Amino acid sequence: MKVIHYSEIPPVAIDNETVKNVAGRVLIGKDDGATNFCMRRFEIGPGGFTPKHSHDWEHEVWVLGGRGEVFIEDQWHALKEGTAVFVPPNVEHQFRNVSGAPFAFLCLVPPQSPEI
Amino acid sequence: MKVIHYSEIPPVAIDNETVKNVAGRVLIGKDDGATNFCMRRFEIGPGGFTPKHSHDWEHEVWVLGGRGEVFIEDQWHALKEGTAVFVPPNVEHQFRNVSGAPFAFLCLVPPQSPEI
Repeated sequence: MKVIHYSEIPPVAIDNETVKNVAGRVLIGKDDGATNFCMRRFEIGPGGFTPKHSHDWEHEVWVLGGRGEVFIEDQWHALKEGTAVFVPPNVEHQFRNVSGAPFAFLCLVPPQSPEI
Repeated sequence: MKVIHYSEIPPVAIDNETVKNVAGRVLIGKDDGATNFCMRRFEIGPGGFTPKHSHDWEHEVWVLGGRGEVFIEDQWHALKEGTAVFVPPNVEHQFRNVSGAPFAFLCLVPPQSPEI
């Protein structure tokens, strides 16, 4: 079992050609014995975005705070605290921050996905 | 795909001998094509609790707000916004509100669990 505040887990910074200004944390994963799905927390800074890509696993997302958007099926959708997003497998998608403050969300994935 | 604010989903009230003052919502589930895990949001009112039980599936929990506690392995653990909890399969557990305000959390389960 595990009971942990997310702030106790050091973030992993991700910043390259396809990902900008993203910090990720694995909250619950295979190392904890969670073999069916993995809970991650991501924070996108101002101007930041995740890659525009697709893969053969789904995302289940919960928006924690800030203002962002998700691109799914050729449209951008506005996101705020309390919005849930289901991205099915093999659908192109991207998340981006559209404000000057951090945009944070949980993103859960099945075991065939990298954890971070 | 699905993009929805949780407040658009009517809550299901649960109140019986083993569960008190709980409202649950299925945010992402089998009806959405989510076959690997289900995202639910629960709100426990003042004095409320979930059943003290165990089952052969795990929980992945994220605390959204309020003050609560979880009983796992014979101990109560304090919970606040930003705490993640992993309850492994077959471990007795219970959640309860310990304040006068609502206590809210996400609870994700694999497909062998009832969705609500």
